[in-house]
Amino acid sequence: MPTDVLAVLAAPDLGGPAASAAYRFADVASPLVTARDLGVTRGEGVFETLGVSGGRAQAVDAHLARLGRSAAMLDLPEPDVSAWRETLFAVVDRLPAEREASVKLVYTRGVEGGDRPTGWAYGAVAPDHAPARTRGLAVVVLDRGMPHDITATAPWLLQGAKTLSYAMNMAALREAKRRDADDAVFVSSDGFLLEGPTSSLLLRFGDRLVTPSTSQGILPGTTQADAFRFARAQGLTTSYEVLRRGALEQADALWLLSSVRLAAPIRSVDGTARDVDTAFSSLLNAALLARTE
Amino acid sequence: MPTDVLAVLAAPDLGGPAASAAYRFADVASPLVTARDLGVTRGEGVFETLGVSGGRAQAVDAHLARLGRSAAMLDLPEPDVSAWRETLFAVVDRLPAEREASVKLVYTRGVEGGDRPTGWAYGAVAPDHAPARTRGLAVVVLDRGMPHDITATAPWLLQGAKTLSYAMNMAALREAKRRDADDAVFVSSDGFLLEGPTSSLLLRFGDRLVTPSTSQGILPGTTQADAFRFARAQGLTTSYEVLRRGALEQADALWLLSSVRLAAPIRSVDGTARDVDTAFSSLLNAALLARTE
Repeated sequence: MPTDVLAVLAAPDLGGPAASAAYRFADVASPLVTARDLGVTRGEGVFETLGVSGGRAQAVDAHLARLGRSAAMLDLPEPDVSAWRETLFAVVDRLPAEREASVKLVYTRGVEGGDRPTGWAYGAVAPDHAPARTRGLAVVVLDRGMPHDITATAPWLLQGAKTLSYAMNMAALREAKRRDADDAVFVSSDGFLLEGPTSSLLLRFGDRLVTPSTSQGILPGTTQADAFRFARAQGLTTSYEVLRRGALEQADALWLLSSVRLAAPIRSVDGTARDVDTAFSSLLNAALLARTE
Repeated sequence: MPTDVLAVLAAPDLGGPAASAAYRFADVASPLVTARDLGVTRGEGVFETLGVSGGRAQAVDAHLARLGRSAAMLDLPEPDVSAWRETLFAVVDRLPAEREASVKLVYTRGVEGGDRPTGWAYGAVAPDHAPARTRGLAVVVLDRGMPHDITATAPWLLQGAKTLSYAMNMAALREAKRRDADDAVFVSSDGFLLEGPTSSLLLRFGDRLVTPSTSQGILPGTTQADAFRFARAQGLTTSYEVLRRGALEQADALWLLSSVRLAAPIRSVDGTARDVDTAFSSLLNAALLARTE
């Protein structure tokens, strides 16, 4: 079986023309996007990355719903969720079921001056994330530059939309590497905890799991939502809170959660070692990998 | 002659393999970028847009220098300036010399996990910008969300790099249209004037032309630099200053400057009419269109 698969949607939006098939498979190495597509010239588009385990895409409804919310924030046409779902499942079916994998859904505004968006699903076998899940991550804290309540007053800044304009997130990860760390945690310019560049932040205080409130212009985490469900089933309480930066030091344990790497415990913050909750990390990752929806 | 032209660089960076030709022409409508190119999946790349007038690309050295500075801010390989220049000139030569045009240079990090960047030049006949240059623009003032001195402390936010992650700039332009305006002027979260989403801001106070200082995480404008040269030749003084938002009201006249639309006077700010300096606008645009470098 191939280790990566590409499928292109015939009509990624609800207003698209009728097509005999929702998607076509395409050669991964062949060009797909024209030089005038606003996805590449302006970063105008949105995306989702889903984890695949046991031959099943995870948190599908949550990812497709978030794709739609991000699209709405960019005034993109409403995505045709059933076409995306069908394309996603077709890609997953072609990947080797015994390997963990990821599928990225990309939805752009299409060619400038045109009225047809572009959409595709790219699936690939995932690298081995076991070290991150067990040994954990060294993280640094980086300023996100904006106050925590910016989205309410300045929606054009698109905070909380998962857009293709991700250069800043990638630069933050490079800054983390420059500081000999693996990843980063963003804080707002007024000192509130936000999220990682490609992940959600999870904090444990005793029997309570907490994640920063999405009212702060951050993404609602699909993996974080499932982690909360698991935690409640284990008798823990969960909450969304506005947290000051100092909460990082006060928490008993910390994680970064994302769809493919899943729950990666944080083993140091700005060079200061932190206790890793190995037992809960292991339970949580097992539960996340066993999701059937 | 065609109204648009695409040329793809064989090796856009200095470390690239030797090639028998710097570029190849390509079909504008055919796909160029793969689904795994970080330019489209992460907005990881930089760009420049040059104006073309009288069959000559304008401010070539300034644009190529800025491409290199933006690339350095993203840790991209150093662009091969001579290859970019040769490709740019080849594109200009194929465009109808009697029409104003633009050429966009796009330089991405290339395919994820690879080590080869992607680069192309896309030229097209420009729309008619005469109405903007004469009647002027209605603008709204929008919060950029970050303090004016953010670049010094948080370079990973990439403020001042001209990246492909431009979704926010495009959303700001849509917000302006929603408010029945043509364009926007960004202010920092602490109340300093910055730039437009795709332009520089120019203010006239008597015989003095002023633009916001680029120490504030904004782009050094190539057209603004040439406007300053012209103004000094006319006996005006010019300066880069840190300006509070109130300077918009105090100025005698205002412009947005960009490479293709050139000098567009501002005829209203947030719905309040402003005097348009028709005479200077006309002189300035004539001078900008007559540039031979």
